[in-house]
Amino acid sequence: MLGQMMTQPLLISSLIDHAERYHGQTEIWSVETAGGVTQTSWAEVARNARRLGSALSKLGLEPQDRVATIAWNNRRHLEIYYGVSGAGFVCHTINPRLFPEQLVYIINHAQDRVVFVDATFVPLVAALRDQLTETRHFVLMGPRDQAALDQVPGLLFYDELIETGDEDFQWPSFDENTASSLCYTSGTTGNPKGVLYSHRSTVLHSFASNTRDVIGYSAMDVVLPVVPMFHVNAWGSPYACAMSGARMVLPGPDLHGEALVGLIDTYGVTLAMGVPTIWQGLLAHAASSGSKLDSLQRTVIGGSACPPSMIAKFRDQYGVETVHAWGMSEMSPLGTSNHPLAKHRDLPLEDQYRLRENQGRPPYGVELKIVDDDGNDLPNDGVTQGDLMVRGHWVLTSYFHMEDQQLLQDGWFATGDVATLDPDGYMTIRDRSKDIIKSGGEWISSVELENIAVAHPKLATAAVVGVKHPKWDERPLLVAVKADGQEPTEDELLSFFDGKIASWQIPDKVVFVDALPLNATGKVLKRKLREEFFDVLTG
Amino acid sequence: MLGQMMTQPLLISSLIDHAERYHGQTEIWSVETAGGVTQTSWAEVARNARRLGSALSKLGLEPQDRVATIAWNNRRHLEIYYGVSGAGFVCHTINPRLFPEQLVYIINHAQDRVVFVDATFVPLVAALRDQLTETRHFVLMGPRDQAALDQVPGLLFYDELIETGDEDFQWPSFDENTASSLCYTSGTTGNPKGVLYSHRSTVLHSFASNTRDVIGYSAMDVVLPVVPMFHVNAWGSPYACAMSGARMVLPGPDLHGEALVGLIDTYGVTLAMGVPTIWQGLLAHAASSGSKLDSLQRTVIGGSACPPSMIAKFRDQYGVETVHAWGMSEMSPLGTSNHPLAKHRDLPLEDQYRLRENQGRPPYGVELKIVDDDGNDLPNDGVTQGDLMVRGHWVLTSYFHMEDQQLLQDGWFATGDVATLDPDGYMTIRDRSKDIIKSGGEWISSVELENIAVAHPKLATAAVVGVKHPKWDERPLLVAVKADGQEPTEDELLSFFDGKIASWQIPDKVVFVDALPLNATGKVLKRKLREEFFDVLTG
Ligand SMILES: Nc1ncnc2c1ncn2[C@@H]1O[C@H](COP(=O)(O)O)[C@@H](O)[C@H]1O
Repeated sequence: MLGQMMTQPLLISSLIDHAERYHGQTEIWSVETAGGVTQTSWAEVARNARRLGSALSKLGLEPQDRVATIAWNNRRHLEIYYGVSGAGFVCHTINPRLFPEQLVYIINHAQDRVVFVDATFVPLVAALRDQLTETRHFVLMGPRDQAALDQVPGLLFYDELIETGDEDFQWPSFDENTASSLCYTSGTTGNPKGVLYSHRSTVLHSFASNTRDVIGYSAMDVVLPVVPMFHVNAWGSPYACAMSGARMVLPGPDLHGEALVGLIDTYGVTLAMGVPTIWQGLLAHAASSGSKLDSLQRTVIGGSACPPSMIAKFRDQYGVETVHAWGMSEMSPLGTSNHPLAKHRDLPLEDQYRLRENQGRPPYGVELKIVDDDGNDLPNDGVTQGDLMVRGHWVLTSYFHMEDQQLLQDGWFATGDVATLDPDGYMTIRDRSKDIIKSGGEWISSVELENIAVAHPKLATAAVVGVKHPKWDERPLLVAVKADGQEPTEDELLSFFDGKIASWQIPDKVVFVDALPLNATGKVLKRKLREEFFDVLTG
Repeated sequence: MLGQMMTQPLLISSLIDHAERYHGQTEIWSVETAGGVTQTSWAEVARNARRLGSALSKLGLEPQDRVATIAWNNRRHLEIYYGVSGAGFVCHTINPRLFPEQLVYIINHAQDRVVFVDATFVPLVAALRDQLTETRHFVLMGPRDQAALDQVPGLLFYDELIETGDEDFQWPSFDENTASSLCYTSGTTGNPKGVLYSHRSTVLHSFASNTRDVIGYSAMDVVLPVVPMFHVNAWGSPYACAMSGARMVLPGPDLHGEALVGLIDTYGVTLAMGVPTIWQGLLAHAASSGSKLDSLQRTVIGGSACPPSMIAKFRDQYGVETVHAWGMSEMSPLGTSNHPLAKHRDLPLEDQYRLRENQGRPPYGVELKIVDDDGNDLPNDGVTQGDLMVRGHWVLTSYFHMEDQQLLQDGWFATGDVATLDPDGYMTIRDRSKDIIKSGGEWISSVELENIAVAHPKLATAAVVGVKHPKWDERPLLVAVKADGQEPTEDELLSFFDGKIASWQIPDKVVFVDALPLNATGKVLKRKLREEFFDVLTG
């Protein structure tokens, strides 16, 4: 016997409908690729999204045809998110920092029928278009631009395209499990692999993000997603903000500290999300410019491990709460977020602070477990390390067009991370499984060593990798980038570890580099460092 | 083309699984019907729920058979919520304050196979059982009790029943639209009508309640649901608290101010929910006892209009934020909640306060509109009054076993409330449609007059009803209950309205009564007052 309640599909279009109806006048500020800031609103985004959905339908697209974007965080990108998915197509966000051959691969693999590009990427498209055999239309996200048209003959223009659409377009209704959006992981080995989200997984993920102990967007918030809309849908913020009716500030192409501090102070940003590297630049600029980041209440930091020193700096110098979060493209991305429990309320402050440092616990809708090499469950004792497995409403089952490959193990997805879980479900990421350092049979977490190193005042940033050792097999090497005008010595850096960690875990050596190699999503390419310095202890 | 994400049904069992796994040790304090407080935990509730689910299956129940409760808010009631629905039966919560003939009607109409009762209600069951033709088992929620068994031969005992169940019982999996729970409206006319919730509607409603701008339960919260578990599932708090891992304080039978203040102060309650009449008692006791309600951070008040003076008292005297919420049994119940928008941040404080007084705006998942007598949409201008219609994921489609009656109008449910909606979606309930006062063709809101009257320091409480008038058809009458030791005069009360409302809306007369008649859910029975005083202006 079924319940007697209304059943409506959980569709992405219902998110923008809600925002238009109940938060129509709420402001969205968008930094344009060409410079300058445009103010729009949820009502206008909704209207343009409908016009776009209608225009795309008129172009003759079929249901769930892929429509790609190569773009910064801006208002047109937001309209495309809703226009494409709302009309029943699949919004495929592409990371422009991928190598050209990877871009060609994924656009062809996804069979993107239409590709929207920001002005920045017109030259890229001009160079690649001959190889993009599946694509019928390229659309510049802006008004008509003759110079761009000269580079890409046949180029369409967003502002003209939506003119051909009907603003009274009715969103179609369909199965909530229908594909809605697609994102390829930047993948450090092999070709990038696509994660195909559904309307249902997206709406449920938005619900979870809006709960108080995850991100908890509010209509009182002014939200700055620094995390790019081309990477796991900016952690789902464009959807979750529509659900809660938050103001948004879309930062465009310039993510340097100065630009971000300016946006925070100008628009009264209360909540910002991004990866640790972004906040390093922001904190440096705030310090040098004297901005107190007055409006900012909380940051959500994830994507790679957030150093405890960064959490402390936000807290002690700016009065900002940091929510450390963990996730991945394969899980939409939210897997865990660090919020306290009632029983923590009365602990000494230092203990409360320490508890906020790890990656946090899963919300309802996500399950975690750790297993050994044979797939046996390991205890959640906060000490035992194992391969992290996940399961839940917004976790993938298989990669796009790789359905035949058995990805899951007993229904669980292997994250490739090594973690501990404590009895309350708090998780600490120890490493990517391939980055963990195996020294004489014992595991050393590169992340833990990096967290200590980056707190050293004379370093700008640092990474730790395992390199070859004749006796111990692998030993940790600290690869360090000096802070401006500082000249730390190797001794001084290594003695900084004393007392903070078991002595056998202290790196064997320091090498200084000018910059760390980063992948397309801003994560350190440890593989590269390992290759480069592999023989530094032996050779 | 479907997305490639895991699809798991949204089942109530997954809520308690989550609470057990990630908040197992989190405390739940339960005031026992026999007196005293028992401390339990989410893990123990989960374990007992599984044993109960298993035991009920062994009793030979069929899927979706109804299992009823007549009980206070306590730990066994919580276990029954999960054990019954989790195992695939329907948890039918019964309001013990209904008239005996109504109880008989609904237990037979629902075909309750098993009825769980708190000790308080054993005499009731003893008196009615001969008429309860559909019920096979009565279970006392407690240990074996010979005196009770003497009153109700064949009576089973909860603590023994769960001993027969298997604690490793596996929750069954099934369609998420399956019926999960049932609640009859107390209905002021005709027989009570049943609302049959589903697993999906319940989980989605929990997600919405846990978002920051609705109730936003947190694992940091200690939650006191004063609203009874026999009334719309205590506003869904037993589900939402499991989802967020909050501590709970279940207050048992005594809901007087003294008992509630004691619970708040003893267990550090941070969040409490209930109807305005409950808070009147609580505020009175806090004032006389000198409790500062230190731990309390927010109250959610709904069920009938929350007087602005109560919101102000909580805010100014206790530093407690009140979230004014509106809902109904037919919508699980949450329809709207009052939280501010970003643009309100800079308004003068007095304006911000005033904006918090109305019933608030709908979360994602609920849509509202107002219509005229012919069903035409009316403007959302904050002034025009109309019949309030709702639609959404947790709104009913038809009453239980009344599927053939066309309840909805074009897919919308008519709430029976008269409301205004402003352009931001904030709703003000003007009245129940049958309580609005029609004076010479103009509508007067009884709620608005009551809000003013109850702020008078010499009144304990008050109601306003429309009574017969020779010229104006109907005119407002103030029915007032004096505060302890106070002797307000009619003149003094009526002049209190001056300047607060248009003069033609001021009541024509005051009558004093010792107490207001209440219905089974604690709402004032205006129908009774209207009958009693109908001729007071003419006769
Ligand atoms: N808070 C975090 N701490 C440590 N690693 C993280 C964190 N968040 C994400 N990651 C890493 O980033 C991976 C996901 O990368 P991506 O799918 O590109 O977002 C995870 O599997 C982790 O290895």
